[in-house]
Amino acid sequence: MLNITSNGIRKQNMAVTEKGIIEHLLLASRVGYLGLVDGDEPYVVPLNYLWYQNAIYIHGAQAGRKATLMGNSPKATFTVANDLGNIANPVPAKTDTAYLSVMVFGTITMVPDLDESTAVLQAMLNKYVPGYYDTLLPAGHVQSYVSGAGSHVGVYRLQADKITAKQSEVALAMMFYPGRTRKSDV
Amino acid sequence: MLNITSNGIRKQNMAVTEKGIIEHLLLASRVGYLGLVDGDEPYVVPLNYLWYQNAIYIHGAQAGRKATLMGNSPKATFTVANDLGNIANPVPAKTDTAYLSVMVFGTITMVPDLDESTAVLQAMLNKYVPGYYDTLLPAGHVQSYVSGAGSHVGVYRLQADKITAKQSEVALAMMFYPGRTRKSDV
Repeated sequence: MLNITSNGIRKQNMAVTEKGIIEHLLLASRVGYLGLVDGDEPYVVPLNYLWYQNAIYIHGAQAGRKATLMGNSPKATFTVANDLGNIANPVPAKTDTAYLSVMVFGTITMVPDLDESTAVLQAMLNKYVPGYYDTLLPAGHVQSYVSGAGSHVGVYRLQADKITAKQSEVALAMMFYPGRTRKSDV
Repeated sequence: MLNITSNGIRKQNMAVTEKGIIEHLLLASRVGYLGLVDGDEPYVVPLNYLWYQNAIYIHGAQAGRKATLMGNSPKATFTVANDLGNIANPVPAKTDTAYLSVMVFGTITMVPDLDESTAVLQAMLNKYVPGYYDTLLPAGHVQSYVSGAGSHVGVYRLQADKITAKQSEVALAMMFYPGRTRKSDV
C-alpha cells in the first residue's frame, strides 16, 4: 500500500493525492534527484532510476560519497518533477510556473539478492534502451557487473514510506511563448 | 571568485572544472533541486532559480517546510543537471547515460534588502518570461509582493562556497534511439 499524503503541504489546493497521476510521473520520468544527509549538509544527486513495487531503485558505485552517505545515514528523499512551462500574467507577482512534482521519502538500502538485482537491472534496460537487447540479462553477467574488479556496482532500494505530490496546473490560454507580451494580454 | 573543485569526485576523469561549462549550465537551465536537511532526513525541492554573482537565488513563501528548514539549518545544496540521452553498448553493463551535472554547496539566507530583491525578481522575469513586460518592476510592487497579505514571498540567496561538476560525455555514434538494436551494433 502506498502512503500518499498531503500532510505537510502548506497550500492544500496544490496537493496531488491521485495514485495514477503520481505513478505516471514516477514511471515516465528519466531522472530523479536523490537527497541524502551528511551531518548538517545535504547532498543532492541526479540519477536514472526505476519505480517498481512501491520503491525507487537506483544503481551506482559501492564507493564514493553517495555510497558512504547511504551507509551512514540511510534516510533518503527522491524527488521527480515535470516542468510544464510558464504562465504569463499582466501582474508580475502572478507570473508562475506550471509543474508536477513528487517526493518519495524513506530509507535506502543495498539490495543483497542477486535475483532481485538482476530483475531491477533488466527493468532499467527496458526503460532506458527499450528493444536494444534481444536476450535477457543473465544473472551471471549481473554478478560480474555487480562484483567485477573495477566496477563494484550495487543496486539500492528506497522503499517509499511516504509520498507527497504537488502541482501548479497549466493554464492553456496564458502559457508564455517567445514573443508573447503583456500588451497583448491587457 | 568561484571555488570550483574536483575534490570529492571519485572518478576524476568525469570531473568538470571549466568555469564556462559550469556557468552555462547554471544560466541555461530552468529548474534546479534545492537540498535541505531536516534532522537526519533530507528534503529536496525543485525550483526555478537565478544564477547571479556567484550565487543561486530563489524566491518562495516565508512559511512552509522549505522556509522553516532554511531558517533552522541553512546549509544547502543546489543541483542542476542536463540529461543528454543514453549511450548504447552491446555489453549491457556498459550501457550508460550522458549528462552534465553541477552541485552548488553553501549557506542559504533570506535577502533583506529591497533593492537586491527587486533586481533578482526582475532578472527572474527576464529569464522565464523574456520580453513579456515592457516596463521594469517597480520596487513598490516588489514590496507589496514580498510582504503583502496572503503572499509573504521572500527572496533567498545561496552563496556558492564550493562547486563541483561531473559529466558523462555524449558518444555521438552510439546514442540510443528507438529502434536501435544490439544486433545492428555487433
